[in-house]
Amino acid sequence: MPCQDFEYRFTVRLDDTDAAGILYFGHLFRHAHAAYEALLEEAGWGLGRILLERRFLLPLVHCEADFLRPLRLGERVLVRLCLSRLGRHGFHLRYRFDDPQGRLCAALASVHVCTGADLGGKQALPEGLRAALRGYGCGEDADPD
Amino acid sequence: MPCQDFEYRFTVRLDDTDAAGILYFGHLFRHAHAAYEALLEEAGWGLGRILLERRFLLPLVHCEADFLRPLRLGERVLVRLCLSRLGRHGFHLRYRFDDPQGRLCAALASVHVCTGADLGGKQALPEGLRAALRGYGCGEDADPD
Amino acid sequence: MPCQDFEYRFTVRLDDTDAAGILYFGHLFRHAHAAYEALLEEAGWGLGRILLERRFLLPLVHCEADFLRPLRLGERVLVRLCLSRLGRHGFHLRYRFDDPQGRLCAALASVHVCTGADLGGKQALPEGLRAALRGYGCGEDADPD
Amino acid sequence: MPCQDFEYRFTVRLDDTDAAGILYFGHLFRHAHAAYEALLEEAGWGLGRILLERRFLLPLVHCEADFLRPLRLGERVLVRLCLSRLGRHGFHLRYRFDDPQGRLCAALASVHVCTGADLGGKQALPEGLRAALRGYGCGEDADPD
Repeated sequence: MPCQDFEYRFTVRLDDTDAAGILYFGHLFRHAHAAYEALLEEAGWGLGRILLERRFLLPLVHCEADFLRPLRLGERVLVRLCLSRLGRHGFHLRYRFDDPQGRLCAALASVHVCTGADLGGKQALPEGLRAALRGYGCGEDADPD
Repeated sequence: MPCQDFEYRFTVRLDDTDAAGILYFGHLFRHAHAAYEALLEEAGWGLGRILLERRFLLPLVHCEADFLRPLRLGERVLVRLCLSRLGRHGFHLRYRFDDPQGRLCAALASVHVCTGADLGGKQALPEGLRAALRGYGCGEDADPD
Repeated sequence: MPCQDFEYRFTVRLDDTDAAGILYFGHLFRHAHAAYEALLEEAGWGLGRILLERRFLLPLVHCEADFLRPLRLGERVLVRLCLSRLGRHGFHLRYRFDDPQGRLCAALASVHVCTGADLGGKQALPEGLRAALRGYGCGEDADPD
Repeated sequence: MPCQDFEYRFTVRLDDTDAAGILYFGHLFRHAHAAYEALLEEAGWGLGRILLERRFLLPLVHCEADFLRPLRLGERVLVRLCLSRLGRHGFHLRYRFDDPQGRLCAALASVHVCTGADLGGKQALPEGLRAALRGYGCGEDADPD
């Protein structure tokens, strides 16, 4: 399965920055999740509808980030996102953040599990969602369960 | 009715600041609302329970702020909060933000309306909540409806 | 001077919403300011450069908002922004937020003053910035000083 | 070196929650960093002063989190924080988040490196800061460099 990165762009805004003059580390997770939401929309499984229907939820159970270079106010950032693992009950995502010069500034990863509406025990991903996500895979397919 | 300010304190944290080196204006609304949530808890009407029960909601329909002096990282801020108007269907709140030297740094106001769980048309405030809020009044009692 | 609205779009993301299921009121200021930053960039006066050069700053001294209809996760919002007043030492902005059905959901206003790098007393707006902003005016030109 | 956890408390506020009704994962990093800022203040090295003096900075180069149980609006959270590694050029922190029933809800870790004011190459931690941090160690002392 060849790598099919999903691309998402944002501009570093004043509310992203902190008194050190750079993007506050915690806000990068917010942008990563926005990129993931855009991917879900493209896949036909917008999070708004998922939350409205409440047949299942997709909470994060893990995330991590490496910060390589600071991002600054006004910079246009390219996020490249792919599905690194797709399992029966969840999936792993990877995100790379590049600055306008194409330098890698941060790398993130998140692990999502499918649960019922009460956020309790895990359940199988809906087959349709699983099929839709498969198009964003980047070559690894070990089961994350 | 004598002024009975509710007091709430917070420290300006890195995520509150921006690249200009001061508290980002939009975050002040977040702290004002946190102060209001603390008041509701003290009054015995915590927002967590209100949202869980979904018998009514209290959305903001208006807010405004004047920014007089910048707040900086690490400063301990005192918020003084009072109910400036209490009506049949809603209420007005006023917030003053003082820095550690007692200087007024910002003044906010918010207007809340009581609605059904669908956030549609307004409805009467529950009588118990109305009675509880009365203790935080600051002398004005014109009806905000 | 005919109205020349500046247009800016964003999608309501999960981090914009709260447990009431709608966009948290305070985040609207964040999006309004992002729209203003995009306007400054188009005008050739990006905030990143202004903060780097530190010859002057443009702090908010006032803002206010009316919330008319809730915005929900996944909705694509159109922000229309114009300069309602341009003075020697500052300017006023107005923002309207429309949902995908074209319904007005919120209206905001902000007042900015030009200060030195220390955020102390006001100073005259740089003439070049003043000229650039004039193109975004919406018909009112009383001096905000 | 016996474990000397630093304790920090916060209440889950409406702006922490999202439309799924729980604390949005990304906000946990904000609270973790606030706990770290409180630790620095107690240690006599407040971040406000560090940023003002600009002799060195302490950017994060890595962080990660495991989310075990959702946190909900109004819950009072206990953060326990300790220094898991202290090196010549940086340090590692660990954070545990407990709900009011004492159940572990999340575990975070962050890695900080000491750099110059330009956020370029790493430099040695000031000896005074290093000594102050040593009091928060939790038994591991391998060098993170």
